[in-house]
Amino acid sequence: MPRIAEVRVTPILISDPPLLNVQGVHQPYTPRTIVEVVTENGAMGLGETYGDLDYLKLAQEFAPSLAGAELTVNHLGAGLLETVRRVDVERIDNRVQAEGLRGARTLGKIAASVRSAFEVAIYDALGHELGVPVHALLGGKVRDAVEFSGYLFYRWAEHPGPDEPKDDWGAALDPEGVVAQAKRMAADYGFDSFKLKGGVFEPAQEIAAIRALAEAFPGHPLRLDPNGAWTVPTSLEVAAQLEDVLEYLEDPTTGTRNMAEVARKTSLPLATNMCVTAFDDIPEAFACDAVQVVLSDHHYWGGLRATQDLAAVCGVYGVGVSMHSNTHLGISLAAMTQIAATIPDLRYACDTHRPWQTEDVITEPHTFTDGRIRVTDAPGLGVELDRDSLAKLHERWVDSDVRRRDDLAAMRRVNPQWTVPTW
Amino acid sequence: MPRIAEVRVTPILISDPPLLNVQGVHQPYTPRTIVEVVTENGAMGLGETYGDLDYLKLAQEFAPSLAGAELTVNHLGAGLLETVRRVDVERIDNRVQAEGLRGARTLGKIAASVRSAFEVAIYDALGHELGVPVHALLGGKVRDAVEFSGYLFYRWAEHPGPDEPKDDWGAALDPEGVVAQAKRMAADYGFDSFKLKGGVFEPAQEIAAIRALAEAFPGHPLRLDPNGAWTVPTSLEVAAQLEDVLEYLEDPTTGTRNMAEVARKTSLPLATNMCVTAFDDIPEAFACDAVQVVLSDHHYWGGLRATQDLAAVCGVYGVGVSMHSNTHLGISLAAMTQIAATIPDLRYACDTHRPWQTEDVITEPHTFTDGRIRVTDAPGLGVELDRDSLAKLHERWVDSDVRRRDDLAAMRRVNPQWTVPTW
Ligand SMILES: [Mg+2]
Ligand SMILES: [Mg+2]
Repeated sequence: MPRIAEVRVTPILISDPPLLNVQGVHQPYTPRTIVEVVTENGAMGLGETYGDLDYLKLAQEFAPSLAGAELTVNHLGAGLLETVRRVDVERIDNRVQAEGLRGARTLGKIAASVRSAFEVAIYDALGHELGVPVHALLGGKVRDAVEFSGYLFYRWAEHPGPDEPKDDWGAALDPEGVVAQAKRMAADYGFDSFKLKGGVFEPAQEIAAIRALAEAFPGHPLRLDPNGAWTVPTSLEVAAQLEDVLEYLEDPTTGTRNMAEVARKTSLPLATNMCVTAFDDIPEAFACDAVQVVLSDHHYWGGLRATQDLAAVCGVYGVGVSMHSNTHLGISLAAMTQIAATIPDLRYACDTHRPWQTEDVITEPHTFTDGRIRVTDAPGLGVELDRDSLAKLHERWVDSDVRRRDDLAAMRRVNPQWTVPTW
Repeated sequence: MPRIAEVRVTPILISDPPLLNVQGVHQPYTPRTIVEVVTENGAMGLGETYGDLDYLKLAQEFAPSLAGAELTVNHLGAGLLETVRRVDVERIDNRVQAEGLRGARTLGKIAASVRSAFEVAIYDALGHELGVPVHALLGGKVRDAVEFSGYLFYRWAEHPGPDEPKDDWGAALDPEGVVAQAKRMAADYGFDSFKLKGGVFEPAQEIAAIRALAEAFPGHPLRLDPNGAWTVPTSLEVAAQLEDVLEYLEDPTTGTRNMAEVARKTSLPLATNMCVTAFDDIPEAFACDAVQVVLSDHHYWGGLRATQDLAAVCGVYGVGVSMHSNTHLGISLAAMTQIAATIPDLRYACDTHRPWQTEDVITEPHTFTDGRIRVTDAPGLGVELDRDSLAKLHERWVDSDVRRRDDLAAMRRVNPQWTVPTW
C-alpha cells in the first residue's frame, strides 16, 4: 500500500445566490473546505466538506497526522477521535445552526463531516493508484447513471449589497416564480422530479406553489421541505392538502415524537435530514415509525462506507433512502454520484444544489442529462482539480471575514428584526 | 469492465470426520460446490458454497446466464431471482434441515447461499483483473489478521464403515476428551478462544466439559452451542451455571420468543446462527432483544456486501457480530478472512471448521498463527485452485450417491432408532 506524502487543506469561499429558507437567506459567499491527499507516487485524491470554521479547524489539526501514513481509510476513525479530543470543544459554536439545517450541532457530527472529506480523498487517491473508479473500491456500481431532483428555492433576484454575486435566475417569491424556476431547471438539466425548499412563506402559499407545480408537471414526483418550520397540526393540514401530489413531505416538523405523530395521521411518507442525522438517532425513530425516508449525506454521516451502512439499516427496516444536499461543488457531486451508484435501494432522485453554484474547483464541471449524471469509470472520482480556481477562491477566503454559513445573519442585514418563524 | 467468458460449477465430495451435534453426526463425505469464473482476459475467480443438491441445481441452472456478462456483481440479484423462479420449488427438499443447522430452509436462503459463491468468484476475478485484494474492492481492510476460535466437537474416533476417512484426533466423548482436543488445537493452531458444539450429551456433561475447559484455559473466551437443543428452563439452568466462564451462549433454544425469554433472565449474551439467519428476521429479534450477538456467514447471508450490511445493522442496534462456519475449504476461508478484515465491529474470534478438513482445493492451504490468518494483499482472494485436487474430489462425487449433508441419516447408520433429542 503506498504512503501519503502530503495532505493539503484549503478553505475557500464560493459565491451563492440569495436562496431563502426558514433560517433566513444564503449569504453571498459560503465557505467550503477542500482536501488534497498526495501519495508518495504522486497520485492525488480530492475531498470536499463544510467550510465553517469549526470544521476547518478540525481538518487542519488532523491533516498533518496523515503524512507518512498508509493510503487507507483505517487511520481516520481513531485519528480523528484523538484530534477531536485535542481541539477545544468550547470553540465549537453551538449558536449557529444554519450549516445545512440538519438538526442540532454536535462535535460528533462535525467530526463525521470532516472525516468524510478525508475518506473521499483517500478513496480518490487509491482509485488513481489502482486505476479504478471509487465505486469499484466500494463493492461496485449497480447503475450507470444517478438521477437527481431539481431543487427549487424561493429566492430574491439578487443579494442586497453592492458588488455581490449575481445570476440571471431572477426572483421567485410566489407560485408563478417557482413554476418558472422549475421550467428552466427542467429545460436546462432535464430534471424529472422537483423539491421545493419551504418554510419561507405561510403554508397556504407553499401549498399553492406545490399545486401549481403539480399542474405544470403532472405526474412528476414533487417534494416539499420546510425544515421543521411547522407545528404538528400545520404539518397535518399541509399533508392533507398535498397528499395527492407529493412523493414525500420532508421534515414538516422537528423531533422524533412530533414526526411520529404526523406520520401516524397522514398517508404521505415523511422524509428527513433533521430528525435522523446520525446512527444513534435510528433505533428510536424507526421504532416509532417517525420517518419513512432517510436522506443520506456522505458528508455528515461520516463518509462513503457510512452511507452504505445507513442504506443497509434502512433497507432492513423498510425505510426508504434518498440523498440530501448542502451547497457543494463538483468534488462532492462526484462523490455523491459514486456512492449513490453503489446503493441498490436508492429509489429516489437525489438532491443537489449544484445548479445554483456558478463556480467550481474542478476542470470539467459535471453536466446533467435527463436529470442524471453518468457514473464515470475513470480512476478515482473522475475529476481533476482546477488549481487556478482553487487559488482564486482561497484568496477570496483570505480577503474576507466570512468564516461560517449563517443564513440568519444574512437575513438580518435586510431585516434586523428577523427571527426564525414557526407556523 | 471485462466480460465473463466462462463459468464452471463443480460439485465435490470432501472427507469429514465423525463430528457430533444435536442432529446426529457428520457423514464421512460432505458435498461442496466450487464455482470458477473465467474472464475474457483469462483471469480467474473462485467461489465455494454448500453442495447439497438443491444448491447445486440452482448454481448449475444460473451459471450459463453469466457467460458474456460484464464482470460485476450486479447481475446476481435479478438473475438469480429469475433462475429461482425457473427451478421447481417442489424439488427443494424441506425435510433435510442439517446443512449448517441454521434454522428453517427457505428458497430465499438457498438462493442467497448460491449467490454468495458467484459474488465471491466475481470479486476474486475482479481482484485479479485489477491486481488488488478483494478487501480493497469492499472498502478496504481495517485489520491485518483475522482471529479464529478453536471449534471443539464431541466426536467418535472414526466413522462406522470400512474404508471411510480416518484421522488421528481420536474420540472426544467426555470432558477429558474435549480438553485434550482443545489442547491439541491450541498447540497446533494457537487458538486463544474455544467453542464447543453441544446438544450432544445431557446438559450436565456439557456444563462439566465447559468447566473443565475453563480450568485448563483460565480466562480464555469460551462458547457453547447446542443448536437449540434446550428448553427455556434448561437454557436458563445452563446459563446460570456457566455465567462466570462463557463469552457467549449460542442458540441454547429455538425461536425468537424463547431466545428473548432466556436473554431476559441471564447476564450471558446470546449468540445465534439459527434465530436470526436472514435480514427479515432482524427487526423482530432486535426489538425484543432476543440475541446479543449475530453470527455472520457470507454464504447464507448472500455474500460479502451482505455481510457488511449485516454488520452495519448490528452496529446501529448495539448487537455484536461474530462469524459462523459450516464445513468449508480454503476458498471460503479466504473469503471469510477478506470480509472479516473489512468489518470494524467484528470483535469476536470467528468460527472455522477448517482444522477438521484434511483435504482442500487450493494449492496452498491456509496456516493459522496464534489462531489468526493473515489478511493477504495478493490479488483477489490470494488463493490458487488445485486442479488435480478438484478433479479428484469431483470424481469422488461422481462415483458416490451422497448428494446432501444429512447428519441424522448418518447417525441412523449406527443407531436406527435415533431421533433428535431435546433437554
Ligand atoms: Mg431537508
Ligand atoms: Mg451455531
